[in-house]
Amino acid sequence: MSRPQFARETSTRGEFVRQPNRFTDRVTADGSSGWPVEPGRYRLVVSLACPWAHRSVIVRRLLGLEDALSLAVVDPVRDERGWRFTLDRDGRDPVLGIGFLAEAYRATDPDYTGRVTVPSLIDTRSGRVVSNDYPRITLDLATEWRALHRPGAPDLYPEHLRAEIDAVNADVFRDVNNGVYRCGFATSQEAYERAYHALFDRLDALSERLAHQRYLVGDTITEADVRLFTTLVRFDAVYHGHFKCNRQKLTEMPVLWAYARDLFQTPGFGDTVDFDHIKRHYYGTHEQLNPNRVVPLGPDPSGWHTPHGREALGGRPFGEETPPV
Amino acid sequence: MSRPQFARETSTRGEFVRQPNRFTDRVTADGSSGWPVEPGRYRLVVSLACPWAHRSVIVRRLLGLEDALSLAVVDPVRDERGWRFTLDRDGRDPVLGIGFLAEAYRATDPDYTGRVTVPSLIDTRSGRVVSNDYPRITLDLATEWRALHRPGAPDLYPEHLRAEIDAVNADVFRDVNNGVYRCGFATSQEAYERAYHALFDRLDALSERLAHQRYLVGDTITEADVRLFTTLVRFDAVYHGHFKCNRQKLTEMPVLWAYARDLFQTPGFGDTVDFDHIKRHYYGTHEQLNPNRVVPLGPDPSGWHTPHGREALGGRPFGEETPPV
Repeated sequence: MSRPQFARETSTRGEFVRQPNRFTDRVTADGSSGWPVEPGRYRLVVSLACPWAHRSVIVRRLLGLEDALSLAVVDPVRDERGWRFTLDRDGRDPVLGIGFLAEAYRATDPDYTGRVTVPSLIDTRSGRVVSNDYPRITLDLATEWRALHRPGAPDLYPEHLRAEIDAVNADVFRDVNNGVYRCGFATSQEAYERAYHALFDRLDALSERLAHQRYLVGDTITEADVRLFTTLVRFDAVYHGHFKCNRQKLTEMPVLWAYARDLFQTPGFGDTVDFDHIKRHYYGTHEQLNPNRVVPLGPDPSGWHTPHGREALGGRPFGEETPPV
Repeated sequence: MSRPQFARETSTRGEFVRQPNRFTDRVTADGSSGWPVEPGRYRLVVSLACPWAHRSVIVRRLLGLEDALSLAVVDPVRDERGWRFTLDRDGRDPVLGIGFLAEAYRATDPDYTGRVTVPSLIDTRSGRVVSNDYPRITLDLATEWRALHRPGAPDLYPEHLRAEIDAVNADVFRDVNNGVYRCGFATSQEAYERAYHALFDRLDALSERLAHQRYLVGDTITEADVRLFTTLVRFDAVYHGHFKCNRQKLTEMPVLWAYARDLFQTPGFGDTVDFDHIKRHYYGTHEQLNPNRVVPLGPDPSGWHTPHGREALGGRPFGEETPPV
């Protein structure tokens, strides 16, 4: 987004303060929300660059929802008009018929002036935005959309682990997922340093937790792993340099690096990562951080495919269930 | 320097083109240049942040010229008026009596409009700039200033190795010393990518050269090692992120990392490194690259003191001579 938008998300102390999500309706199994689960009805608009959207891309694939919920991918580089469908023929999404995601926002709320965000879940009948509430979208895909899951889909949000998943997610969101943005978008040295210490203290704590267990909660992949992964996979490519999260690279944090590689090599994770979109988005969009918009050629991503040795810790990614194909 | 100055050093293809050095007089042993070697007469103005100036700080110390040639250290952060003596009482250099290095430049050439650079060698009697020709300054300290060297000073530019040293220096200057600037100050993706490939291709070649010999030329430290060191020691602190030289960190290039640590732990090298000045200069001065001027807290520099194992390759840093105390 353009500078003024970001300026609105900066406190007087130079801290980045993320805007609240505007659209918080939910698609539900029983339709009581007014938005019933229905195959083919909704469209998930994502940027492959965006970690918040990436969560939903992973979950959709892990659960086999590709046929039930179609996917629209925006151009990784936003201009002042926001996310664009320039990757599609004639620059318009073929289902929604719009060139900019902002058009769906205006159709839903003509008074909306905030930042247009991904993921956005859109009702293809009305063209209205049902939700851009990313943390809720993935949890609902895992629970409310269960009737449309593929056979063998894992339970990413099991009832008996929800309290623990929620607690881990809250820490990871504050210090890691959003923490890297708090580092990068800080406009004062003090705000940056607070965010940096919170980030790396949390990564140290997560390293301890993951030193002896393969996954964050329980012994299979859950929503908690999805949320940590989308930040870790971007760490060296963009957060380390562009956002100044540079105590170490991920590759220099042995436990987290092995954990992230393990997930990367699990179907549904690495196969949804697009480093080209990731790098072009961050370096090409944030002119307040990178005025010349040059995109770094490094780092070499080949290490993601190297053995991680995490099988020795026990646990199986899909438990009694099966990987997506 | 301010943006317009850098703009002048950018080609139409977006390439950084370093300005020539304006003052190229030489201080000579026989005084034939009009500037005779004389203890206490000249003042070396440096920034501890600047790799070009750092060369002369290292060489001055290796040769024991501290008493003969006094040192002035500028503020690591330039503003639009250039390098400033704000670290000194009342903001003026106590010997030269000036607040800005630019004053000496104007006193020497009232028509000069280029960038004011360090190192600058200044005649304290007249206040005039003798030289800002950094490659010549260190070679002259090693040769013309010999009568003032400490006992046991090494020969950093031995006659029989000069051709080889000059050849290595030419490659290192083009692709590494200046190469990192060509990466960082490129204003087009193409210019950046050319510089990046030249840089890392050269670092790969230097890694091969240094895999089986302890120093770049001969079996003792020479001017060639000084010149490569000043870029390597800044690599992870500033060039990796700020200048987008991010194929790997130095710490991920095993031969060069061990070579750089070996030098760092040699008297005259590591004891002249000021990471605080280095980071504050690059991140605080180049607003065209880092508009918010936030200085990254990383990386952790403690690795510089770890064992390097390079003694096994033979060679001794000072040969038959001795280290500075």
